[in-house]
Amino acid sequence: MSETGQDDDTTAAIMEATYRALCDHGYPDTSISTIADEFDKSRSLLYYHYENKDELLADFLRYLLDQLEADLQTIEADDPYEEVLAIVERLLPPDIESERFRFYRALFGMRSQAPYVDAYREQFARSDTLILAELTDAVERGIDAGTFQLVDADEVAQFVYATVSGALQRSVTLDDPEMIEHHLTLIESYLQSQVVDREDEPS
Amino acid sequence: MSETGQDDDTTAAIMEATYRALCDHGYPDTSISTIADEFDKSRSLLYYHYENKDELLADFLRYLLDQLEADLQTIEADDPYEEVLAIVERLLPPDIESERFRFYRALFGMRSQAPYVDAYREQFARSDTLILAELTDAVERGIDAGTFQLVDADEVAQFVYATVSGALQRSVTLDDPEMIEHHLTLIESYLQSQVVDREDEPS
Repeated sequence: MSETGQDDDTTAAIMEATYRALCDHGYPDTSISTIADEFDKSRSLLYYHYENKDELLADFLRYLLDQLEADLQTIEADDPYEEVLAIVERLLPPDIESERFRFYRALFGMRSQAPYVDAYREQFARSDTLILAELTDAVERGIDAGTFQLVDADEVAQFVYATVSGALQRSVTLDDPEMIEHHLTLIESYLQSQVVDREDEPS
Repeated sequence: MSETGQDDDTTAAIMEATYRALCDHGYPDTSISTIADEFDKSRSLLYYHYENKDELLADFLRYLLDQLEADLQTIEADDPYEEVLAIVERLLPPDIESERFRFYRALFGMRSQAPYVDAYREQFARSDTLILAELTDAVERGIDAGTFQLVDADEVAQFVYATVSGALQRSVTLDDPEMIEHHLTLIESYLQSQVVDREDEPS
């Protein structure tokens, strides 16, 4: 195996250990040591790569975001409306699994630290920019295709993303996974009446 | 001064000290000790009332929420649309001051702990319920008055509140106070086109 290959393996193993530690312990109780407990290679290898929790978690956010970026590229939708919905559902997964829900909770804890940790804030800003760009593109494609009303694509994207963020926040902090599904319905109905061009719909 | 009067004074002084400590230090670095530093009465009086940070901060959230409840009662608006906007602006203050912004940041940090601290979660759940009820009532009044479309008042309230929460989250964690004003505009334009009955508007 090439050195690059080994590095990638090690990185993936560290990131998976971080994911498990965050799911199990939440953000505040996740430390380099709890991550090392989940790591199936030698502890010294982990300590060799990272000096502190913030540095490791900033790298974890970067890794997560690269995955999200790749994942958003794989979306194949029949039309721009389905595409917008598919992006929203990547962020607000219907029937969310318990582990994923606990992970979102930890991620929310990290986001609350973004004002104080520059490296976190940088990644969350990048994440917001990426998601907004994808949403805006999809809305613009709908307008170009004549299936969406002549809305301001960027405004629709900002509005939908704020609603997605707020829905996640309420759901995660009130420990109510069903709130996710409920807000998905609200967003769909907003898109149907505000964005989709009803004149064009089959009656 | 009556004993009740003294108690109220002490409570108010403790709550003000807590507010200042949260603004100055953020949530994670606020402790009973940093609050005592801001308290203008004896430290022992504070320690007499509270054994730990979680207990004090849960009481602080309760106090804050009682204030918000009283504040929402004072809203006097010309019509239900102005009333909905006034509620939204209580939560997303335009031209937010720097101290208030830092306080919102600390409050967001507390919200991120709600999954782990029952007493916090209870207060945030109460806060969400109160705000949603006020929004729903205002929308219902608009429908009854014939100035709003026949919307589902509860759905509109949930949707608007999710957007408010998401806007605050993004603004606070990306350290961008102007995002608040931007999202206020988006919410206004949503209300104008989705909720307000345009047939009734003067042309």
